[in-house]
Amino acid sequence: MPFKASVLTLYPDMFPGHLGQALAGRALDRGDWSIEAVQIRDFALDKHRSVDDTPSGGGAGMVLKPDVLARAIDSIADDSRPRLLMSPRGRPLTQERVRAIAEGEGVVIVCGRFEGVDQRVIEARGLEEVSIGDYILSGGEPAALTLLDAVVRILPGVMGNQLSGVHESFEGGLLEHPHYTRPQVFEGREIPEVLTSGNHAAIEAWRREEALKLTAERRPDLLK
Amino acid sequence: MPFKASVLTLYPDMFPGHLGQALAGRALDRGDWSIEAVQIRDFALDKHRSVDDTPSGGGAGMVLKPDVLARAIDSIADDSRPRLLMSPRGRPLTQERVRAIAEGEGVVIVCGRFEGVDQRVIEARGLEEVSIGDYILSGGEPAALTLLDAVVRILPGVMGNQLSGVHESFEGGLLEHPHYTRPQVFEGREIPEVLTSGNHAAIEAWRREEALKLTAERRPDLLK
Repeated sequence: MPFKASVLTLYPDMFPGHLGQALAGRALDRGDWSIEAVQIRDFALDKHRSVDDTPSGGGAGMVLKPDVLARAIDSIADDSRPRLLMSPRGRPLTQERVRAIAEGEGVVIVCGRFEGVDQRVIEARGLEEVSIGDYILSGGEPAALTLLDAVVRILPGVMGNQLSGVHESFEGGLLEHPHYTRPQVFEGREIPEVLTSGNHAAIEAWRREEALKLTAERRPDLLK
Repeated sequence: MPFKASVLTLYPDMFPGHLGQALAGRALDRGDWSIEAVQIRDFALDKHRSVDDTPSGGGAGMVLKPDVLARAIDSIADDSRPRLLMSPRGRPLTQERVRAIAEGEGVVIVCGRFEGVDQRVIEARGLEEVSIGDYILSGGEPAALTLLDAVVRILPGVMGNQLSGVHESFEGGLLEHPHYTRPQVFEGREIPEVLTSGNHAAIEAWRREEALKLTAERRPDLLK
């Protein structure tokens, strides 16, 4: 079975979005993965099809109703796919979590909007809160698209051999060394001599030193 | 002058993407902000319109050529907008950086693809490397869309009074407390009593305690 993503959202037209283009889009066309966007509002039963209500205890903003969201979640075939809720309150997404998701049969993603989601449906449906970073988005949709891009990219067959052997930031816990390509001189700036020396051991040593230097400067937290 | 985003990319059709919908889309239609996507390939001068070449010193993947990207950047009116390069090597994006960008006149965003971008054009054009999180994407495009969503959301007029007074995660350095709304009982789960007590001081105290507990559990790094 190819990897299947189900997204619960108030904006189903946002999907597949950029995932319908480039390598992810071609893989989608080939059937290497699939995506369905479920409109949460379809599970509102009142005549106004309300999906949100005012927060208990007062305060600004609106809260996504637990009963409506629970019905939307239950409409999706019950299976063992992880159920994520994109939220700045979640645990930060890591490449390790991306890999684990990509190795599974798919993922269910709930996109919040408004002020938040009723805590009881998070608990009752076992939603795993995931954050893609320490900033606030208009809703869970951009976060879901970003997470899916990271996952789809490493599904079998999606990038073909374009991925094989490629060094990546965070590999070995370090940011990546700088890259250079032709021309040899660009606006008076030359490619570092070692890279054109043909001395592979020296090149590896230089790259590792540069990666360490960059990580120490920008992300000392990764060196701990 | 409304906020202006210029994106340099090999996939201009990915823009405005989800930013063309919902609140960001209506603000775009009203002219509260604007976006242009510039095709980097249009600045390749050889007959194959090559934008990448093999990495100096060897290794897998391809590197975006400095001369082509420099011409693409130079094609955009020279102004004081910050020039970002979306990259996992960058400094992590924060809500503070989002706010600073939103207060400016706009932003220029370079989307990398392939293995990376030649280091010399990063230096020569003063590109600020920004990372939206510790995971690897297919390219800079999903990251650019995510960053712009965060920025556009807080531009004057975009969310109107929907934003005013809304508490947010990271406000005061804490993750947000849980939310509840009607019904009073959902699948046997009740709204915590304090929230319906009408005692505002007690509600505030409960929310702060819950926010502290959640932050300690999920993001002890924020408490340091």
